[in-house]
Amino acid sequence: MITKSSLIHSAKSADSYAYDNETLHIRFRSTKGEIERVSLWIGDPYHWAEGGLDGGNLGGSDAHGWVGGNHVEMQLEGSTEYHDHWFAEFKPPKRRTRYGFILYGKEGEKILFGEKKCVDLSDEQVAELELSNLSNFFCFPYLNPQDVLKTPSWVAKTVWYQIFPERFANGRPEISPDNVLAWGSEPTSDSFMGGDLWGVIDKLDYLQDLGVNGLYFCPIFTANANHKYDTVDYYNVDPHFGGNQAFKALVNEAHKRGMRVMLDAVFNHIGDQSPLWLDVVEKGSESPYADWFWINQFPVYPDTPKSEWDFWNFNYETFANVIEMPKLNTENAQCREYLLDVARHWVEEFDIDGWRLDVANEVDHSFWRDFRKRVKGIKPDCYILGEIWHEGMPWLRGDQYDSLMNYPLTQAMTDYFALGQIDKNLFMHSVSQSYFAYPKNVNEAMFNLLDSHDTTRILSLCEGNKDKAKLAYLFMFTQVGSPCIYYGGEVGLQGRRSMSLEGNRKCMLWDESEQDLEFKAFIQYLIALRKDNPEFNEASIAWLEVDDEDCVAYTRGNYQFVLNNSAYSKCVEILGEQIALQPFGYQITERAA
Amino acid sequence: MITKSSLIHSAKSADSYAYDNETLHIRFRSTKGEIERVSLWIGDPYHWAEGGLDGGNLGGSDAHGWVGGNHVEMQLEGSTEYHDHWFAEFKPPKRRTRYGFILYGKEGEKILFGEKKCVDLSDEQVAELELSNLSNFFCFPYLNPQDVLKTPSWVAKTVWYQIFPERFANGRPEISPDNVLAWGSEPTSDSFMGGDLWGVIDKLDYLQDLGVNGLYFCPIFTANANHKYDTVDYYNVDPHFGGNQAFKALVNEAHKRGMRVMLDAVFNHIGDQSPLWLDVVEKGSESPYADWFWINQFPVYPDTPKSEWDFWNFNYETFANVIEMPKLNTENAQCREYLLDVARHWVEEFDIDGWRLDVANEVDHSFWRDFRKRVKGIKPDCYILGEIWHEGMPWLRGDQYDSLMNYPLTQAMTDYFALGQIDKNLFMHSVSQSYFAYPKNVNEAMFNLLDSHDTTRILSLCEGNKDKAKLAYLFMFTQVGSPCIYYGGEVGLQGRRSMSLEGNRKCMLWDESEQDLEFKAFIQYLIALRKDNPEFNEASIAWLEVDDEDCVAYTRGNYQFVLNNSAYSKCVEILGEQIALQPFGYQITERAA
Repeated sequence: MITKSSLIHSAKSADSYAYDNETLHIRFRSTKGEIERVSLWIGDPYHWAEGGLDGGNLGGSDAHGWVGGNHVEMQLEGSTEYHDHWFAEFKPPKRRTRYGFILYGKEGEKILFGEKKCVDLSDEQVAELELSNLSNFFCFPYLNPQDVLKTPSWVAKTVWYQIFPERFANGRPEISPDNVLAWGSEPTSDSFMGGDLWGVIDKLDYLQDLGVNGLYFCPIFTANANHKYDTVDYYNVDPHFGGNQAFKALVNEAHKRGMRVMLDAVFNHIGDQSPLWLDVVEKGSESPYADWFWINQFPVYPDTPKSEWDFWNFNYETFANVIEMPKLNTENAQCREYLLDVARHWVEEFDIDGWRLDVANEVDHSFWRDFRKRVKGIKPDCYILGEIWHEGMPWLRGDQYDSLMNYPLTQAMTDYFALGQIDKNLFMHSVSQSYFAYPKNVNEAMFNLLDSHDTTRILSLCEGNKDKAKLAYLFMFTQVGSPCIYYGGEVGLQGRRSMSLEGNRKCMLWDESEQDLEFKAFIQYLIALRKDNPEFNEASIAWLEVDDEDCVAYTRGNYQFVLNNSAYSKCVEILGEQIALQPFGYQITERAA
Repeated sequence: MITKSSLIHSAKSADSYAYDNETLHIRFRSTKGEIERVSLWIGDPYHWAEGGLDGGNLGGSDAHGWVGGNHVEMQLEGSTEYHDHWFAEFKPPKRRTRYGFILYGKEGEKILFGEKKCVDLSDEQVAELELSNLSNFFCFPYLNPQDVLKTPSWVAKTVWYQIFPERFANGRPEISPDNVLAWGSEPTSDSFMGGDLWGVIDKLDYLQDLGVNGLYFCPIFTANANHKYDTVDYYNVDPHFGGNQAFKALVNEAHKRGMRVMLDAVFNHIGDQSPLWLDVVEKGSESPYADWFWINQFPVYPDTPKSEWDFWNFNYETFANVIEMPKLNTENAQCREYLLDVARHWVEEFDIDGWRLDVANEVDHSFWRDFRKRVKGIKPDCYILGEIWHEGMPWLRGDQYDSLMNYPLTQAMTDYFALGQIDKNLFMHSVSQSYFAYPKNVNEAMFNLLDSHDTTRILSLCEGNKDKAKLAYLFMFTQVGSPCIYYGGEVGLQGRRSMSLEGNRKCMLWDESEQDLEFKAFIQYLIALRKDNPEFNEASIAWLEVDDEDCVAYTRGNYQFVLNNSAYSKCVEILGEQIALQPFGYQITERAA
């Protein structure tokens, strides 16, 4: 029996999108295990037999007579916990299509699943009638090139390195804050260690040797907190980081080495020491910036001490419930233009290669549409990366971002390899789901990570077990999308993150005696392997059958990967071959091309 | 058993949208009949117990500690063929939410359905853990007013009348085309009858008496064909229709009577006699307009006669495969600006109240976004109505149209009342589906119709049976969205439409002896009833139980409607009351408020 209530498809979504200017991708879901094969019935809506209604869609005899259908066999792309996922591609000659799915059930059923109908086709006459009735079908009316999401092709070839500038390298101690602590001190929310961009320039040789070719910086604009998310001046790099001069030099040096540079765009909110906000604090509704924020009541600061404010009812809206981060009103035309100009400025004047958008999901879609136009208008291959932790298709329809920080994949990898909280099946389903959630052109430009300034470091999640961490890195480096290393991860830096803990923002270990050089060599190997094999960026995952509940295997290009996610030695059979694996061990096999 | 593969929800869709600046609407689907009740678990993502990760979403123990959830009981909004549809609204105090669904199965199950997880909650400890794990949930991150779809409130109070100008009324015979036929001649694709806008002005008293307060015109700009879809000059009304002078007078007169005026925007393609296209025909790639079209090869007209052209491979792209309608390239900046200026011009200079967008689904989304900005920037309550026959959510996310021509509802009504091709259950499911397919703010501004210049007239679909047609009109007039009468429908005008037949574009009957005045009185009654009862515009349908396979019943505001869609007299019981119905009869009952 085919469960009809579980047949899922919607047009113009992750299930139905233009992959490029000529190609449609169509996906479809059914209850796992019920369907033998699926034929995509697809064609030009204007292909009518004589007498049919031109473009007609209404019911009754008028709507019959469509003869545009073609059969395209769908492939079983993979499975998640409850569903089988089917995939096909089609190049509509005139860019126009309507389509439905002809399902062949394992019990002999034959069913048409369309937008308006789910109907039995076992009677041939009925089948002929229904397949020629245009009004039954889904519609992708026209593949307009302008609407196609085009992502920068260099992203797929990039291995990122995320830098939290205050903690990476202190190049010029003379520009460090006065209250700077000794490098390597235990970090707290208000401590400074003196990292700056001159320090990053000093370490470009190190990074080049490591093999990374993309640098993603946490905020660098003038701000008070060590994390610089409380922007004071969007047009100037923090003087403690070396100012605009250091950044200009850094971009030049990075570009010389073939490295891209991505900055963090914090446009959801501003810092409470920004002159814009201070003007509102001072002048209230008389400030020209009063409408740049979401003010519930003036004055914005009541007379009572901050400690007594109602956490849920400030006089102004903020990021989270953080007093120091008033939310910007991107609906105000001047505020919007100001932020868009900031976006323009750093691309045009400093030639940056990407913007990572902080709290991207809380800013209006309309702003991000303008943002894309502004940025891509200057540099069409500038990367636009959204920080969104949940499902983010509404931001990926071609008009807003190129891709997302792939936290759902992060969660699958950490839950499985580091924490051991999910079993192999759930892991595989979660990974597959991370592929099926987005168009393949999004997947190809996805930003993959195991940890960041917002999370506990991967090695700490592994309780220091480097074999586990290696499996996690290995897995990440062999998935579609560009992988990112959080600074220091390559030499075994650990650290936990919670509301009260900032251990994940410790200073980089520069003393080789403190670095795990064997671990670093492993990461270097992965980076080289990844860069040598662009086909690792295929936007589909081919799991291999392994008869062991702790081992996963898959192929990528000419490579086969087997990972033993258990504390036991294993001997497994894959494609008829016996493979021996150490505890938390792995095997990488290159096959003949 | 709850069929987990059939649990369907996606964030930021027709299932999850901002109804207004404060209110979220959340819908959710499950297999029909399996679930007893659903509790929406929803709250602010930043509401954390001490120690939880601020805004954190990752797995592991870090992600627990969310204490923001509230229970909102969902209502069973209705059912379609395979699904129950659940609904709830929630006003997030800080505009931010994450949410999941707690399902209580009819067999005692208790399950959490979230974005990442479908998990059994029957164990209380597990329940506590899962409900506090933020990463499990769907996300509507921030209700930004700027992104909320705002539709003009006047639409809900409007009864439309669609006019095909060449066939409605000939006010000035002296401006008719030379080859005009006698009024009332059998129409063909190339015949002219002399209808013009002066004629419409002459008939405004008639329309006012009928009660309609919105006029929707098929194209009126200078063009060659009788239907004027082959635009020659976007800035001038066709001289045979009276030119701009007549239109200006018409808008003034209509507005004086409280009637709105909507024009047809044909921006997908242009007519082959337009000077822009003729320039490309003449100059080929040297024409400044060459890139305003999709040219595959120059010259655009090969030497061979048109009759020998390959229907599927013209030298240029067209609407459908119609040689005379070259497709416009809305991706070309000049072409785009030209069309946007046309849109501006008629709103700003002639004060029109709406644009109906022809072949709206084949023009790029990006164009329609600019179109909305331009038009709403001048007249925020200008109605933007897309011609889309299939599911059209991708155009209704706040950035493009206000609503659609509701052809799916048309099909349900005609298949059931006129053609008798579907049974009562399928009819009810199809109608319900037309509600569930879109946000309620879209439904409230939906454009409902039984027929148009593109379809066979409703009375002809009814084979002339006026009792059937009355049921169809009665049903349409009592649904959410504004109803439209296709000119002449009110007096019993018939006519069929197919590729070769233009019978649906016959001349209006002005001789009262030819008009069905009893039918007209019925339509007048419906119009008055509708205008007197704005609550008929509720965006949900409450079907009443009727133990008869041919009778449907529902309530609207204080009214109860019972329709007998059969050739037999019926006596049915509704809410304990016996109701006698004639063949194809109906009963309208006003209840005490």
